[in-house]
Amino acid sequence: MTSPAAKAQPETPAATYADIATAAEKLAGVAHRTPALTSHTVDERTGAKVWFKCENFQRMGAFKFRGAYNALSNLDPGQQSRGVVAYSSGNHAQAVALAGRLLGVKAVIVMPDDAPSVKRDAARGYGAEVVIYNRETQDREQIAHELAARRGLAVIPPFDHPRVIAGAGTVAMELIEEAGALDYLLVPCGGGGLLSGCAIAANHLSPGVKVIGVEPAAGDDVTRSFQTGTLQSVRNPDTIADGARTHSAGKITFPLILHHVHGMLTVTDDELLRSMFYLWERMKFVVEPTGALAAAALLEGKLDARGKRVGVVISGGNLDLKSLARLV
Amino acid sequence: MTSPAAKAQPETPAATYADIATAAEKLAGVAHRTPALTSHTVDERTGAKVWFKCENFQRMGAFKFRGAYNALSNLDPGQQSRGVVAYSSGNHAQAVALAGRLLGVKAVIVMPDDAPSVKRDAARGYGAEVVIYNRETQDREQIAHELAARRGLAVIPPFDHPRVIAGAGTVAMELIEEAGALDYLLVPCGGGGLLSGCAIAANHLSPGVKVIGVEPAAGDDVTRSFQTGTLQSVRNPDTIADGARTHSAGKITFPLILHHVHGMLTVTDDELLRSMFYLWERMKFVVEPTGALAAAALLEGKLDARGKRVGVVISGGNLDLKSLARLV
Repeated sequence: MTSPAAKAQPETPAATYADIATAAEKLAGVAHRTPALTSHTVDERTGAKVWFKCENFQRMGAFKFRGAYNALSNLDPGQQSRGVVAYSSGNHAQAVALAGRLLGVKAVIVMPDDAPSVKRDAARGYGAEVVIYNRETQDREQIAHELAARRGLAVIPPFDHPRVIAGAGTVAMELIEEAGALDYLLVPCGGGGLLSGCAIAANHLSPGVKVIGVEPAAGDDVTRSFQTGTLQSVRNPDTIADGARTHSAGKITFPLILHHVHGMLTVTDDELLRSMFYLWERMKFVVEPTGALAAAALLEGKLDARGKRVGVVISGGNLDLKSLARLV
Repeated sequence: MTSPAAKAQPETPAATYADIATAAEKLAGVAHRTPALTSHTVDERTGAKVWFKCENFQRMGAFKFRGAYNALSNLDPGQQSRGVVAYSSGNHAQAVALAGRLLGVKAVIVMPDDAPSVKRDAARGYGAEVVIYNRETQDREQIAHELAARRGLAVIPPFDHPRVIAGAGTVAMELIEEAGALDYLLVPCGGGGLLSGCAIAANHLSPGVKVIGVEPAAGDDVTRSFQTGTLQSVRNPDTIADGARTHSAGKITFPLILHHVHGMLTVTDDELLRSMFYLWERMKFVVEPTGALAAAALLEGKLDARGKRVGVVISGGNLDLKSLARLV
């Protein structure tokens, strides 16, 4: 495990525990309070006491709903009536589309032209407008910001946004409320919204916990950023963990990670696949590759968890059966 | 849905709500209290408010653990030291083997020679002795009873046993404790242990509930028995629901079903497969064919559940990835 180069001290914290507690109130009765599953088999294998916080059972199948709903519900009424725009080929798109439908906020989703049609249809099914771009020649953030300027939409970024981070932090809050104090909390890391939100909540509710982010080995930009204290990036990394292909942590998430996270780990795609299959066969739940990152770090022995109380965030389960059969 | 031919009144009830409450005490802290998952998507599709009681997350992957553990833990110490014997190619074998290991009771499992080696290995992994028989030429009950007589073992039948039924009934007890009163409770039906136990618990805790058993269309012996009031049987029915290939309900379960159950439904293998895939893709959990019987009756519109509060028992999730890929 790597240690941080320096503990940066952000002067004005972009997201605090109070923001997470407020997000939890917004989400009460709207988001699922997902179960924290345990397994004697996993405990025997790892020597630890393990809780899997199952955000694959969250609405639209991933933790992303929490941040999107929290962000949209905190917009002022004028902005809510103008609408929002998000850029995502993955779970954030569905999350913003669903949150928009529930809150009566018009949502525009910017998606690459190579996104599976099932994902475009799903966003449209929630009533969102889908705008297609070419991944090779166009920049999705630029398109989103142009749309925002032209149509008065609020941009809802996938992770680098205080309300999105606070929403994601409710995952760790619920887990610790159910499991009690933890020694380790393992969290998948793409852009670092889930990781930083969970780290803020965990440090507050379980002082002394070690919060560890887990990335795919091919997309280890946050690990390198964490080691050097300087934001590093990666371009279209070759990994099955599509939700962690993000090219770098954000302006908001990176300082939060440096401040609140205790270590970073990486897992290879082979390790990830083995862990996904293990979770399907032994835990009986469907997890997408990115969703299994933290579990893979534990199951593949990347840290010595013997005798420890370990929380593992399963961040999502959106994987169609054909992809599943292909992976098998 | 079919109605019963007659409401038989068993003179001495073989299993009562008090037995289920006692079983719940035995199982506390040993069996998982499995989650009851909900889904807005399913509620929209069915027009109902639906809870899936997820026994696929139970220890060894199916509800069977409850009955086996309850039966073994209620044996007298002398019998516990002599051991038990069970005949099963499926989940009951693993359940008795695991319960035996936890309670320090020697378990002998009689399995057909065509059972997957992974199942034999799993039973042996729990410390059980596996005795192989030929499905075509030998009778497993006879073998088990001969072993029992010769070695002083107690036979633990897969369903037709009061303690096994009472243990299974804790599934509905927990579900109703969590979800509240139900209008319908849908339960997979093989030999009727889960169905009768759940019906006893549900009628006690949620008066007015309609308890419906669900069988594979090819193995509809309990449905026909229920219609006629006379025990009917079926031989090796051709269905993917291997846990419901039981040739008939039991001497104990059949009167309980006639007394406590309100209707029976059947689903075809095609309907079952569609429902399994739906549960995997939308609910993100792995369910075996038999485990999806009750869900299939709901999802395929076999009853009008609009406006109703519906509990659905997911009875197990033991399906290896290769079988899964083959089914896809």
